[in-house]
Amino acid sequence: MRALWLHNQELSVRTDLPRPETPHGEALVRVSLAGICNTDLEMLNGYYPFAGTLGHEFVGRVEESPYQSEWVGKRVVGEINAVCHTCIACTNGRPTHCEHRTVLGIHDRNGAFAEYLTLPVENLHEVPDNVTDDVAVFTEPTAAAFGIQAQLEISPDDRVVVIGSGKLGYLIAQTLVATDCVLTVVGRRPKSLELFRSQRIRTALATELQEDVADIVVECTGNPSGLDLALKAVRPRGTIVLKSTYAGKAELDVSRIVVDEITLVGSRCGPFAPALEALTNGTIDVRPLVEATYELEQGKEAFEHATRPGAGKILLDCSKE
Amino acid sequence: MRALWLHNQELSVRTDLPRPETPHGEALVRVSLAGICNTDLEMLNGYYPFAGTLGHEFVGRVEESPYQSEWVGKRVVGEINAVCHTCIACTNGRPTHCEHRTVLGIHDRNGAFAEYLTLPVENLHEVPDNVTDDVAVFTEPTAAAFGIQAQLEISPDDRVVVIGSGKLGYLIAQTLVATDCVLTVVGRRPKSLELFRSQRIRTALATELQEDVADIVVECTGNPSGLDLALKAVRPRGTIVLKSTYAGKAELDVSRIVVDEITLVGSRCGPFAPALEALTNGTIDVRPLVEATYELEQGKEAFEHATRPGAGKILLDCSKE
Repeated sequence: MRALWLHNQELSVRTDLPRPETPHGEALVRVSLAGICNTDLEMLNGYYPFAGTLGHEFVGRVEESPYQSEWVGKRVVGEINAVCHTCIACTNGRPTHCEHRTVLGIHDRNGAFAEYLTLPVENLHEVPDNVTDDVAVFTEPTAAAFGIQAQLEISPDDRVVVIGSGKLGYLIAQTLVATDCVLTVVGRRPKSLELFRSQRIRTALATELQEDVADIVVECTGNPSGLDLALKAVRPRGTIVLKSTYAGKAELDVSRIVVDEITLVGSRCGPFAPALEALTNGTIDVRPLVEATYELEQGKEAFEHATRPGAGKILLDCSKE
Repeated sequence: MRALWLHNQELSVRTDLPRPETPHGEALVRVSLAGICNTDLEMLNGYYPFAGTLGHEFVGRVEESPYQSEWVGKRVVGEINAVCHTCIACTNGRPTHCEHRTVLGIHDRNGAFAEYLTLPVENLHEVPDNVTDDVAVFTEPTAAAFGIQAQLEISPDDRVVVIGSGKLGYLIAQTLVATDCVLTVVGRRPKSLELFRSQRIRTALATELQEDVADIVVECTGNPSGLDLALKAVRPRGTIVLKSTYAGKAELDVSRIVVDEITLVGSRCGPFAPALEALTNGTIDVRPLVEATYELEQGKEAFEHATRPGAGKILLDCSKE
């Protein structure tokens, strides 16, 4: 089968890969559409030493499910962490931190930029008929945005500043609108803020950002400079949610964190159920994010497009024979 | 009067300072004993641009209290943040983060390394007769140690690792023993761990520290290397309490924080009441910490002593005429 393969930070389109065997407890999914995430781009930069098929945002249809045949034929999205259920993290209610986990297209498990993938059946969520593929493919990043509310209570009184006006910033802002918090989205370029303003979300340029204006800051710029802006915006005893993953380290003014008693919370994955529900009932509109769809064979061009500054979501159509 | 004065990161013993006037709402305190804190040493390193009398750990006796005369003659310790009660931070229950605060010997307020200081009466706590000066002088750093439990619930199930076997590490460990948590104190030098072992507190050398062994880590080494050890010890979804203030920045692996969904909590001051209670009833024994007491005139020698690696608490006797 065809797949977009990462090896030594080099991407290649492979056509020589066998269709995967379906392991015990898993299902074979024919991938329809997959999305390129900033994490995929960072993996090309060496953020994480993965070799294999990239991709973790997808929608597809179950072709084989030897152990739970009722899944065959269903259209699905899938949670990306495949876990053991027996380690300390799993038995203490933190399965996404399973010590033996594999992660779709990220760690020890081939990903979604391929004709087929396998995932444990328990990871799958059926997509309602009225949710089209180009919407369903956003379930995973929308779940990641909902993860913030799973970690942190956000109330209408809270002044929340989202630093980062890219795709993740958009999804996070969409999930926050429902909390009725006092929301502001901060970006570097005026053009990146237009979409937010068209939805009546308050915006500010990074250069206009004031000090001590936020009870909660969500940092999702994808680069180290976002942390400085977050520290500027947050009030003493406020909270910064960190959502950016990137290769390399950031400089942290630890004394500032201590003196102002700031809390930093790392946030990765989130719950699929509210994400799929919001996409189904339309409270989150993802369509303005899609910039282009490429075929799997054009994977390198698709990645090149995704790295352009300010690029919207780039999708990969994996369904073509 | 005499005082230990900081200007342009230079320390000097001054004898030409006037006895301070007592502002409205404040009391004049004749300082008996004061303690040199790591923050004082860091201020010599340029951690914070303060000019004036250093010192914020003290015990003394009230000489003047024009507005609440019942305080005159009482032996007291004092909270170090003098606040406005009207700003957003004060009116939202965060007075120690008052936007207009002055801080004893740290920010816009002359400190305790002097014959006299003034503080708002509301900041004072009377010291019980059975608590000697050399114990009472530890109230402020003991309160800072208790601050951790004011921010974070710690249960007997929690595996807590304290990184830093110095004076603050000792006080923090003492406050944590009462929680019945599974406590380990980590230090760089075997000698620094002896005091903990003599109190049957489990210890480990930094070189022996295992990965992912702590639900909660308290970082109180006073230098940037402590953060790396803390990140090594903490489990995914665990919490690191940051207690160190120092000049300069630390390098932070933000992606690690995000992927492992770690929480970092800055922690500065804490409540005086439980600290004074623990010192009064002897559940915390601070006397093993005292290494030497200098007179105010020997302030520079005292600071030189305090900077020696592994030095215990250095006190300044401010009472001599």
